[in-house]
Amino acid sequence: MKRVDEKSPADFVRPEVLREPLYTLQTPDHRIKLDQNENPFDLREETKQEILRLVLKSSWSRYPEFHQEAVTAALGRREKWPAEGILVGNGSNELLLASFLAVGGAGRTGILVPPTFSLYSKLLMLTGTSVENVPLETGSFEFDVDRIVGALERPGFRFAVLCSPNNPTGSFLGADRLRRILATGRLVILDEAYGEFARERVRPLLDEFNNLVILRTFSKARRLAALRFGFLLASPALAAEIRKAKLPYNVNAVTTAAALHLLEREEAGEVDPSVPLLVSERERLRVSLADAGLPSLPSEANFLLVEPGASRRQELFEAFLARGILVRDFSVSPALAGMLRVSVGEPQENDEVIQTVRDFLGKKESHR
Amino acid sequence: MKRVDEKSPADFVRPEVLREPLYTLQTPDHRIKLDQNENPFDLREETKQEILRLVLKSSWSRYPEFHQEAVTAALGRREKWPAEGILVGNGSNELLLASFLAVGGAGRTGILVPPTFSLYSKLLMLTGTSVENVPLETGSFEFDVDRIVGALERPGFRFAVLCSPNNPTGSFLGADRLRRILATGRLVILDEAYGEFARERVRPLLDEFNNLVILRTFSKARRLAALRFGFLLASPALAAEIRKAKLPYNVNAVTTAAALHLLEREEAGEVDPSVPLLVSERERLRVSLADAGLPSLPSEANFLLVEPGASRRQELFEAFLARGILVRDFSVSPALAGMLRVSVGEPQENDEVIQTVRDFLGKKESHR
Repeated sequence: MKRVDEKSPADFVRPEVLREPLYTLQTPDHRIKLDQNENPFDLREETKQEILRLVLKSSWSRYPEFHQEAVTAALGRREKWPAEGILVGNGSNELLLASFLAVGGAGRTGILVPPTFSLYSKLLMLTGTSVENVPLETGSFEFDVDRIVGALERPGFRFAVLCSPNNPTGSFLGADRLRRILATGRLVILDEAYGEFARERVRPLLDEFNNLVILRTFSKARRLAALRFGFLLASPALAAEIRKAKLPYNVNAVTTAAALHLLEREEAGEVDPSVPLLVSERERLRVSLADAGLPSLPSEANFLLVEPGASRRQELFEAFLARGILVRDFSVSPALAGMLRVSVGEPQENDEVIQTVRDFLGKKESHR
Repeated sequence: MKRVDEKSPADFVRPEVLREPLYTLQTPDHRIKLDQNENPFDLREETKQEILRLVLKSSWSRYPEFHQEAVTAALGRREKWPAEGILVGNGSNELLLASFLAVGGAGRTGILVPPTFSLYSKLLMLTGTSVENVPLETGSFEFDVDRIVGALERPGFRFAVLCSPNNPTGSFLGADRLRRILATGRLVILDEAYGEFARERVRPLLDEFNNLVILRTFSKARRLAALRFGFLLASPALAAEIRKAKLPYNVNAVTTAAALHLLEREEAGEVDPSVPLLVSERERLRVSLADAGLPSLPSEANFLLVEPGASRRQELFEAFLARGILVRDFSVSPALAGMLRVSVGEPQENDEVIQTVRDFLGKKESHR
């Protein structure tokens, strides 16, 4: 057959998309996976079996339920928030995209606080929304609330996209500082993916402010990354608008069954011991690494941003990998040039991280 | 707590979104579900069990694989198309959105051919893309190829979104007429969700044209609507650009396992008997309904658009529902004012549809 090759993607694709680098993830061989901030503890086999029994009983050739009423109601009971103000998604990423489709677009500006999750700027670009950066403070990586407020108060359609605890720095905003930002009256989309690991949650602010959208996920603390489940909390009126920007049937029947089952177990009084364990392991890891000579930023999440320095970053990454430990390299971001992100693993995995750092820095010392 | 109510969604949300009606689906009680064009035959229990055994062995707390290599390779073997030209999605809807984010946006126009799947215009609106309608021909609901070509050839960034077999009319475009549209050099996004039920597929045109994007789904013929799996075929260069507009980890681990398992069974020579059965049932249903006095359009899909007429549409809908049969009412669309869409069900379900129509029209006759 004749092959017509005269057309190239540049004839069809938006220039901004053509310019965007392809988001990808290299996963070299490893034994210990500390690169994606997952909960290292799998769900118990019994829990999985219970979920799969439910799934087996339902028809697979029929669409998932349109309104997702049961799981939304369960979330509402847990969050003490009306079901009409809750949207569920195929991971919280999808609800972030729906939010940007609803409130972003040409002539509108999203305020970002980098270094932060790279998907925000990509999704703002894709939705035709302008981006204005108000970086975290140099060195401390704290939120610069005065500058965020200043950026929001300028004229035009402006909204903020904040991540707290922030990925990849672990920086924490907290309710008091968030309240100052919300007092501008501008919309704030707060990604609380790591909220379970922090000292407080921002949910109570929804009772005070209807310019707040909170995004949450079951992919981190809740051990369900493989199944992708996220949700959004906002005023019912605002949630109704964002719902229009969400695809129908976006959460599949297995994911719904799993999320509902986990919520029901929690309602029955079951407590997941992994979260307090990971929090205490995070603190142990931070102190032990500091003792070994590797500082890291304070973190309210389930990871640490460690600071080997620009000259040793690559070497430390490879020292980890040589022992089968995969951590995250952020060298593409100039602000993070000397840093690596290490997810908190199971205790023995963290022991191996500590030992690797001790050996690496000990060797370094002896080479001086 | 003080409740700050001075902000309304209109302060944040784009006017186009505020104007958009909420997409919803009413599902009154029913016994026979013929409203969503699903495959009425569930996957076999044994197949489900095999898939769930695979799922049980993997970790649920870890993200799905980033590159989805195994399932993409299996699709590539089946479609005889390079894996680099294949994207997988959480249903084909998601890949449609990704396509529009890549090639649509402000200053660009998507050509639609209504009446068609309502999601197209909604997603074009959400992505800030202008819509130009080139309706199907009045009465016959055939594609008006000359007018589609004319609309594409006007200046500016323009692309066409076609559905063939078309939902909800069953209209079929076919390779020859599609070739004429592709010869304009404009991008054509062809939704082939119902392609398995049609007399031919358009896949061979990908060998000739690199301005073609084909969307496919496992939600109809493949009996996997509950799990949501769709895929996209395009030139590798174009697929690489659309990939940038797709969320990472969009297909969850259970869905991937299920799709891969079905593809492997097919490669091993297993044939799904439901598709030819549904095609022959469609023809039986069409002839029987016509004999009973209810005409419908020729259809290459797994549904019929029946034409009771505007004055009897609501009454027939209720007659179906009174016997527990749920069909789809499109009365919101003026072009479909006198019509109902009836999915082809299992043979005994179709018998009940036929009997209901006979009784309904018989009663009508006797009342004259």
